[in-house]
Formats: sequence, C-alpha cells, structure tokens
Amino acid sequence: MQNPSAVLHGIRTVAIEDRPLPVPEAHELVVSVRATGICGSDIHYYEHGRIGDYIVDAPMVIGHESAGVVTAVGAGVDPARIGQAVALEPGVPCRRCAQCRHGRYNLCPDVVFFATPPVHGSIAGFVAIDADFAHPVPDGLSFEEAAMAEPVSVGVWAARKAAVSVGDRVLVTGAGPIGLFAAQVARAFGASSVTVTDPSAYRLSVARGLGFEAAEADAALDPVHTVLLECSGAAAALDAGLASLAPAGRAVLVGMGSDAVPLNVPLVQGRELSITGVFRYANTYPEALALLADGSVRASEVITHRFGIEDTEQALTLGRRERESLKAVVVPSGRSGANR
Amino acid sequence: MQNPSAVLHGIRTVAIEDRPLPVPEAHELVVSVRATGICGSDIHYYEHGRIGDYIVDAPMVIGHESAGVVTAVGAGVDPARIGQAVALEPGVPCRRCAQCRHGRYNLCPDVVFFATPPVHGSIAGFVAIDADFAHPVPDGLSFEEAAMAEPVSVGVWAARKAAVSVGDRVLVTGAGPIGLFAAQVARAFGASSVTVTDPSAYRLSVARGLGFEAAEADAALDPVHTVLLECSGAAAALDAGLASLAPAGRAVLVGMGSDAVPLNVPLVQGRELSITGVFRYANTYPEALALLADGSVRASEVITHRFGIEDTEQALTLGRRERESLKAVVVPSGRSGANR
Amino acid sequence: MQNPSAVLHGIRTVAIEDRPLPVPEAHELVVSVRATGICGSDIHYYEHGRIGDYIVDAPMVIGHESAGVVTAVGAGVDPARIGQAVALEPGVPCRRCAQCRHGRYNLCPDVVFFATPPVHGSIAGFVAIDADFAHPVPDGLSFEEAAMAEPVSVGVWAARKAAVSVGDRVLVTGAGPIGLFAAQVARAFGASSVTVTDPSAYRLSVARGLGFEAAEADAALDPVHTVLLECSGAAAALDAGLASLAPAGRAVLVGMGSDAVPLNVPLVQGRELSITGVFRYANTYPEALALLADGSVRASEVITHRFGIEDTEQALTLGRRERESLKAVVVPSGRSGANR
Amino acid sequence: MQNPSAVLHGIRTVAIEDRPLPVPEAHELVVSVRATGICGSDIHYYEHGRIGDYIVDAPMVIGHESAGVVTAVGAGVDPARIGQAVALEPGVPCRRCAQCRHGRYNLCPDVVFFATPPVHGSIAGFVAIDADFAHPVPDGLSFEEAAMAEPVSVGVWAARKAAVSVGDRVLVTGAGPIGLFAAQVARAFGASSVTVTDPSAYRLSVARGLGFEAAEADAALDPVHTVLLECSGAAAALDAGLASLAPAGRAVLVGMGSDAVPLNVPLVQGRELSITGVFRYANTYPEALALLADGSVRASEVITHRFGIEDTEQALTLGRRERESLKAVVVPSGRSGANR
Repeated sequence: MQNPSAVLHGIRTVAIEDRPLPVPEAHELVVSVRATGICGSDIHYYEHGRIGDYIVDAPMVIGHESAGVVTAVGAGVDPARIGQAVALEPGVPCRRCAQCRHGRYNLCPDVVFFATPPVHGSIAGFVAIDADFAHPVPDGLSFEEAAMAEPVSVGVWAARKAAVSVGDRVLVTGAGPIGLFAAQVARAFGASSVTVTDPSAYRLSVARGLGFEAAEADAALDPVHTVLLECSGAAAALDAGLASLAPAGRAVLVGMGSDAVPLNVPLVQGRELSITGVFRYANTYPEALALLADGSVRASEVITHRFGIEDTEQALTLGRRERESLKAVVVPSGRSGANR
Repeated sequence: MQNPSAVLHGIRTVAIEDRPLPVPEAHELVVSVRATGICGSDIHYYEHGRIGDYIVDAPMVIGHESAGVVTAVGAGVDPARIGQAVALEPGVPCRRCAQCRHGRYNLCPDVVFFATPPVHGSIAGFVAIDADFAHPVPDGLSFEEAAMAEPVSVGVWAARKAAVSVGDRVLVTGAGPIGLFAAQVARAFGASSVTVTDPSAYRLSVARGLGFEAAEADAALDPVHTVLLECSGAAAALDAGLASLAPAGRAVLVGMGSDAVPLNVPLVQGRELSITGVFRYANTYPEALALLADGSVRASEVITHRFGIEDTEQALTLGRRERESLKAVVVPSGRSGANR
Repeated sequence: MQNPSAVLHGIRTVAIEDRPLPVPEAHELVVSVRATGICGSDIHYYEHGRIGDYIVDAPMVIGHESAGVVTAVGAGVDPARIGQAVALEPGVPCRRCAQCRHGRYNLCPDVVFFATPPVHGSIAGFVAIDADFAHPVPDGLSFEEAAMAEPVSVGVWAARKAAVSVGDRVLVTGAGPIGLFAAQVARAFGASSVTVTDPSAYRLSVARGLGFEAAEADAALDPVHTVLLECSGAAAALDAGLASLAPAGRAVLVGMGSDAVPLNVPLVQGRELSITGVFRYANTYPEALALLADGSVRASEVITHRFGIEDTEQALTLGRRERESLKAVVVPSGRSGANR
Repeated sequence: MQNPSAVLHGIRTVAIEDRPLPVPEAHELVVSVRATGICGSDIHYYEHGRIGDYIVDAPMVIGHESAGVVTAVGAGVDPARIGQAVALEPGVPCRRCAQCRHGRYNLCPDVVFFATPPVHGSIAGFVAIDADFAHPVPDGLSFEEAAMAEPVSVGVWAARKAAVSVGDRVLVTGAGPIGLFAAQVARAFGASSVTVTDPSAYRLSVARGLGFEAAEADAALDPVHTVLLECSGAAAALDAGLASLAPAGRAVLVGMGSDAVPLNVPLVQGRELSITGVFRYANTYPEALALLADGSVRASEVITHRFGIEDTEQALTLGRRERESLKAVVVPSGRSGANR
C-alpha cells in the first residue's frame, strides 16, 4: 500500500485501506507520518460514531496527534523543508474570519480539523497540511514524543488561560494523559505546587512518579489552591475543585464528558472565582515542543503502549482491555507493545 | 433623638431608636447621614433574619447605601473635611491580609461591612467610618444620588471584571436597580450596544426610558453578545445569557438568589466563554461618583420612592406593596413619597 | 480615464494618470473609491521621496485612507457585496506568519500596505483589496467620514494599548487629525477627562470645539494623568507628557517624527510608568466605523478641505499653504473647497 | 551593646553604635537580625551621602536586606510568632492611599522604607517592623539566603511586569546581584531561554555557572528576544537590549544609574515594544522565599563575602577593593570572609 490509512466505516468498524497519495497544494506540504497518538475523541468516534453534532456518516480516516517527516512541498513553501521532522497541528483555520484575525484561530467556525467529520485524519502513511501548521521538531525528540505536542498543547493552552505562574498552587483533577500533561505544563509555568487527583490508584502512581502530590478524587482539600485545571470531565471533580480554590482563584474546564453540571453560584461569587472553558488551542506548538525537548514535560510515562497501523483497532480498544494503560501511539508499521 | 437609627430586632421587626452619637477614632470621621438607599440585602434580612450564614441574632441597625456630611474627625484626619459631602463605601477591610495587600480588599475575610451581622448599618442619624472610605461627592450631586454610588459601584466592578469597552455588545439580564445601573455603566465604558431583559413590562419600560434596547426575559437572542452581566439571580437568565454569547464571550455573575444552577459545559468550552463571580467591589467609588456626576449614570429613573426614617419599614416592604417600584431611599426626616 | 490615479513620480511630482482597471483575484473585491484622506505619510513621501528605509524608487499611486463602493468580486466572495459601501483597511497581511497567527497582523513583516513602496495606494478610481479588509459602512456615514476609519483606527488602537477606561484622565499631546481623533476615541472609551495640548491656537480652538480641555503645548501640567497619548512626534511633548503622568500611568507613542528622544529613566522607574509604541492597528475598523456612525467621533471638524483628484497636489501642499487646515480629502472628481 | 547598629554619619563615615532596643507597637514585632545584605543603595549613601532627593542629613542606620528571628510582638500580633524565622520586607506603606488600596503599595508616597532617609535601616541587632512585612522563612533556608528575598523580589517584580512565561526568550543586561537573581527568576517563570550580558568576564563566568548563556555586553544580538530585563543601568545596554527585542517585545527597566537615556522611538513604534519601569516590588516575598527554598534561585553563587557588623565599612567598600565580588552580607558578629 502506498498510503495505508485507518478508516472508520461505522461504529467499531475500522479498516486499513490504501488511499491516494496526497498532492500538496499551494502553501501546503506532505508529511510521511511516523507516529500518531490515540485521543479520547478517536475512541469516542469509534465507539459511538459521533461526538455531539459531529457525525461520522461517511468513511473517515481517524487520528490527529501526529509527527513525521516532510516529503514534498507545494507552491510557496521552501523546498529545503523536505526531510524536516515536523509535528502536525491538526486544525487549519480559514485565516479570514474575525476569530482568525484576532488570533483566536481555534474558534474559527471554518477550521478544518483532522478526524473531525468530514475531514480525514492522520493515522495514515501520508497527509498534506498547511506548511505553517507543520512545526519543526527540536533535536533529540522522537516522533512519538513530538506527536504528543498535541495533548501537551491542550495543557499549554489551559495554563495560559489560567495564567499559571510562580506562586500558584495548582490542582489538576483527572490523571489521564491530558491531566498528566497539564500538570507537567503547570509546573513548567512556574507553579509552586501541583496536586493531582484521580479515582484510579494506577493513575495516581503515575502522577507520583512524575513528582506530583497525588490524592484520591474524593479527598477533602483545603481551599488554598489558586488554579484548578479540570481534566476529568466529571461533575463531582469540578464541584470539589471549585470548592478547593482560594479567593480570586481561576478554573479552566478542560475535561469533556459532562453536559449540565451544577454550578455553586454563591461560591463563585463569594470568592470571585473565574471559570473559563477551553476548546483545543492556538499558538501553542512551539512551546509544547520546547517543553518536551527540554524535559520539562515527559511523554515516556504517559505513552504506555504502541501499535502498528494494522493494529489500530487494538489501540482504540486498549482502555477497555487494559486498565493500566494511558496513551497509545500508532506507528506506520512494526510490532505492537507496551511501554514498560 | 440625637442619633435616630433603624434597628432590626427580628424578622419583620424594625424599631426607630435613639443610639449614642459615634465618636471618631483615629483615621475615622463621623458623618451626618442624609440619604440611605434600601438594598435587596436589607429586605432579605428584614424578611428572613439571615442571608446564608450571616444571621441577625442581636439588634442591628440596617442600611449601607449612604451619603451625608462630615461632622467630626478623629486623629490623623484633616479637620478641613468637616462640612464635606461624602458618599460612604460601607465595607472597611483589615488592610493587612493578603487580599488587602493585593488590592482585592473586597475579599478581605475581616472586612467590617455596614448592616452585615454583627456590624451596625447606616439608616441612622450619624455613623463613624474610616476617612478614606468616605468619598468626596462631586458638585451638583444630591445626597440620594451620591448614596447610589454603592449600587453603581456594583456595576463598575462588573464592567471592569468583564473589561467592557468599545465594540462590546452587552446583555444585561435583570432590570432591577442593579441591572439598570450596570447597563448604564456598561454604556459609559463604551459598549457599542446594551440590551436589557426582564420579565416585568414595567422594568423594561424604565430600561427603554434610559435608552436601552429591552426584551422579554424569555426572548430568543442571537449569540452575538460579547458580554453578559447577569443581574437577575435567575438560573434561566444565566442559561439563556450564556447561550447568547459569541465565542470568547465574558459573563459576570452579579445577581444573587440561585444556589446550584446547571452550567452548560460544552457551550462554555466550545465558545471558550469565561465566567466570573463578583462580591461587592473595590476601588470603584470615585468612578461611580464621577459617572453619576457627569450624567452617564442617571439615578432619577431608578430611585422611585423616598421615605422618612420613621417610615423605614414601609421602605422595606415597598416591593411587596408596589410592583411599579425600584429603589427606595430613606432620609433622616421629611415626607415619604414616590418619584413621579 | 477609466481608472484615474494620483501617481507620485518623484519629489514634489504627482501626475494623474490612467491605469488599468484592477481585476479581483480569489478572496478579493474591487472598489470604486469615493473618498481618500491625505495622511502625513503621503505628504512626507511627496516632499522627501522616502520615509526611513521606505524609498519611492518607482512611480507609485499614493493615498491609503479610503472608502467606496464594491463593483466586482473575485472567487470565494459573496456577489451580494457588489454595491456595498465599504471602508478600506489598507494593509493586508500574509495571514501565515507568527504575528498574523497571534492576531498582531499589523506587525506582519510581509504586510502589503497601500502607498508604502512598492505597493500602490488608493487615490484612484478603482482598487482591489481582500474582501475581509473592505469593511461594511454603517448607514448614515458619508464616504469621506468612512474614509476616516483609518486615522480613527489609530486612535482605537492607541486607546486599547493604553486600556483607556472609566476613571482615566487622558492627556493627548498634539491636536492634528490623529490627536483630535485619538482624543475623541479616548472619550468614547470612557475616559473621565481628556486634555489636549498643541502649540497652535487654531488647533486648540478645534479641540475646544470638540468639547475638550485644551492647553498650550508648554503649559505646566500636574502629574495627575493616568494616560498619555503622544500624537505630536515632538520630543518635548513626550517629555512633558510623561512628567504629567501619575504613578502607574500608561503612555502610548503614536506621533512620528522623533528619532532618539531623551527618556527620563528615574521618572519612568519611580512612577512605574509603562510606555508602548504603536504601529498602525489591528482589528479596529468595525469599532472605528461604529464610533463614527454613532457620533462618538466626529469627522466634520477634522476634515477641513476637499479636492478633486485632479487637484491632488494641492491637497498634498495644503498644510504648507494654509495654516488653518487639518485633514484634506480627495474625491474622484468635483470641485475643491474648504469645510467651512 | 544591646543593639549594635551601623550608623552612617556622613560620607564614608560609619560607626557601630549601641542604640535603644525597639519596642513593638500595635501590629508590630521585633526581630533579632541575623543577616543583612549590602545593596548598591547602601554603598551609594556611603559614598555620596545622598541618592537624588534623598539626603542623609542626620545619622542613619543603613541596610535593608535582612532576615532574623522574632523576639517580641506588639498588640494584635500572635505571640506564637516569637521564635519564628522571618525575612523582612523593608518598606511598610500607609495602607490608606489610592496606591495602597489598589495593591500597588510600592508606589505609596508615604511608605516607610529601611535606610531611606530619615528612616533607620537594619544593619542592627534588633529592628521593629509591621508583622505582615515579616515573612515566615521556609524550612531549610539560612538567614543569609532568606535575606536575599529582597533582591530576589526585585527579580520577581520585574518578571511579573514582563509577564515572563513559557516560550519567552529573555535577555538580562547586567550580571550584578540583581541581574543574576532576575535571570534565575525568569527561568523559574518558565522562560525558554535566558541570556545574560555584562562587560565583566568574572560576572559572565558566574552567570555561566548558574546555567545561563552569557555574552559580552557589546555582543551583537539578533532581534529574537521577547523580554528584556535591563539590570545594568547603562544607557548602552538599554539601547542594545531594545534593539534585540522581537516585535511585541517587553522591556523592564530595573537598573538605576542613568538619567536621560536616548530612546529609539521608531524602533519602539515599528516593533510595538512596551517598556515599563519598576520601583521596588509589592506582594513578592512569599514567592521570592519559595524560589530560594526550592532551589530555583540560588544565593550561594551571588553572596561572595561575609562580614561581622564591626566590619560593615569593609562590606561597603568591598566592590572598590575586590573586583571578583558580588554581594556582601553583614552578620551581627563573627569572622568576615569570602564565599569560596
């Protein structure tokens, strides 16, 4: 196959198919994908065929956390980039709407985002992308680490929204891949302390291994935190997290999963808390890659399993099968296996 | 009586009693009160004897929206201030805690706030207050207008938290005194449009008279607003208000009354909305007085009734008796009456 | 002539020449220009043939403050826009560099800006421009008023950089067109007072006519201002303006003309002043047009003279000939004349 | 002597004299001083008898970078603090002016600051200070390290003003104690790179030992930095530093010494640079102490010499005598010596 691709045909139905090699249009380049992480959204499309209003009603290549090597460039792109290792920022905006012009391109209504129907994703041999959304990978980073620039970007965006800095006491609720990356990012932003909560003893042990204080999700917490990064999507975690904030605390809603959660208005008013939702990220890839490159954010504890592209379905079902797992990465070929 | 005072003795029990003349301590001055507005919190204490954990378990002078004339000064206060017209900022903080030192003195845990148990309030002939919390009244303002610096401050604080400026499209939910002042403040901050919603036709007519677009509370609103100032305390208003915000919109929770309201997390995330609660205000009185003085904020449409101190109980029950009423002001003596 | 254009051929040499009708490319539209203001930079190119490193070494159409009517659209642009009145934002950025992606597109190194060599400008019958840089003109604005969205944008940008809001005491140094617009914008942003200084009695009288306090440029000013908008480009104005700022004051350097001005470092430190330079503007046109449309910013006092395109050279030399002049506007045809 | 104190009597005239033991007033405590750093301002008063308008016209105890142990408390202070190790924030503000109320207490016009005439300083056996300006020292810090919370606070304040965070490329000009601390603070705030410049090879070697890139003061620097922390006070450093900033760069003027330095206005405008002056600091001590305690900021490389109080004059003249010196610390008694 010249461009083997993991195509979602319906609920719990993935096929590896050959697809045409992409040809770069103006401002684009083509990347030979070397690693693609599996995100919760990929699993959700696989299990349910939809996320909210986004419905997979035609075959769609899945995956959007990728890194690889530039193999071709379109008009207007420096040919010297051929051979360059790049991490792919998977959502290319229109560049012309009010959101784009204000620098909030993640809110562009016309963004074209990998593996969000009907756009094809990047568990594939080759993909085309706008050249400025293919970010050079610093020396020393592996492709699977560089692919993690996507979930690390979520953490960078959350830390920016919360303006995490020296002196902050940060609570991260949820120790999945997003929470573990967000916690590491918060520390890199200068947080004076970072505490992670989760119901899973396994996940807490990973958090501790990364150097964080870790607590059961239902532990009572004193209201001393200045920042809450809610990465679990659990209503109870948001409620407990807000209650753990000191006056003037800032909360960022990262985790998905809840619809209508009860908000304690007198608490939010009495402490003048601020709460912000986040949707993907903007202008974060260089920082995410730099944090991975200098060791501030470690991917090795978060990537627990690897699969060849032919085993993509195993990667998608990993969490169901294996409780002691976090992030799976799909590589174009080779043996599947665990991190440790 | 040398210092007639409206003392709340229990639920629906107010007596006008003579109390000792206050003597100014160091840094304090004494003010002859000339006008005190009735706030929803005063009515709530009168009707229920408590607000949350604040319980009136001893007789307490009520009222906290006041203006008057300086009659005496304590050590360290310029004697030239005697005779000066002042508006009283009713919460004096400790000045030494972390919140005070950061300029967030409204969040001081040791603030001494008029008519919040056990602190006496200012429906009284004379009160003492720290000199720097008695703000000079600009020329041309009446005492009742100057007393409105308190609820106008709530609007200034909300507008600052929302960073209202030129280009903003502001939605104010709730057209009581707080909403009507907040709407005027938002306009003064440069908002390009201000829309007010309320279930009451009367209140909407007042809003229109102040120059605002006004709509029924359950009107469908396009998601074009950049700012929501939620001044009703109604869960439905918050829900509809958030839905009316454009991407990157900012909401401020001003109105009290709701406890746990359902929060639409996917909406807050998908549009990256930010939500902030407010608790009173800090560093707002000079601006509130200036807005009243230059006509940007008009009190005359909001103050609908006036009562002598002997009729304080009528002022507290005005809303129950008279649907076409907004803000009552108590003056030390004189005839009670309506604005129009 | 199908597309009469004012072409600068060299120092003090302008010719009106017919040029080809522009054809809209994808995302572009073509505008029949109805009014173009003369800016100081146009005059500077006319008088000196260069501004710093920007050298007019080939014939160049001048002018960049324009409004007109859409006459044609390119691919991807709604044909319903034909006939729409638009104000032209004259600098179209690359949309792909780091500055553009962060929303600071005015700092794009590859911006294509009207009448900045070698890009042709808009004293012309017709120009092509990217559709999203042709901003719809609100009802009720004339073309010459809409053209003023360009210098008004400079004021909006400066007011944003200074975060002008209610409570601010603003000093504007320099009462040329930029200063007079910036002062009006600052007022619309909620400034509690705006004072304008200039050496010219004529300009001060215009400032007073717009409702501002006005003072001789060398008047002694108390250090009570919170914001300085330096619009004169004079080193002495910057020096006096900074000295007039209160602690924590903010200054914005708008006026051009000075190279190395002496900065009083102990003053900047002792009062913790902040100083920001501005270069053009970003995301300001809708707000500038709205301020012109609602009367917050009046162009009628600033546009003092009008010229037909055949008299462009007179427009460029107006300031030399007529001390009591401010802004000249060039229209495609018709009689030249003064405002009053 | 019960309270030996280093008293400056005139230019180059210091005497160690016994002074009365301080008695704590309400809200105060008394501290047995165990270490006091020598600051450039101490040396300046010693050499010149004045700094600008601050003139030593009566004998004054010098020194203001101190830590020690609480020995007595006044009314309103928890007696349990006796025995506590504390770092002294040397400027106590009035708490009542507009600056204090806004949280900018460093700009309080009535601040009482150690060793700023006519206020006595803290090279003394015992001093009294407001309890909330005596900050608890984290476990594991020595007194001389805790005393460094003062110059580290200057760095924290500068980093906050510049909003240093992940992704920033910081240039620190000047590798004296302030520059070396500011550079370490910037790194703790998440700066992606920190480069230090200085004319002294010795100081550059210390900077390198702390892990920084270091360059000669006149090295040509590419305009890639996002932040400049100017810590040298040299006009040439400011000029070169500004030129090394990328578009939208932020500069903070920390170093003193220059009066009127030439400011390149076209550069500041063309790149939209922002420049802020700093004056001391506010709300920085807890963070400064935490950075020292967790090793983010190391004092051991900066404190090069120690002196007994009887050798205070040697401490003041250290820089004249010994080029390879940075910070001197005075301790109440014991042998003088170098760090290494």
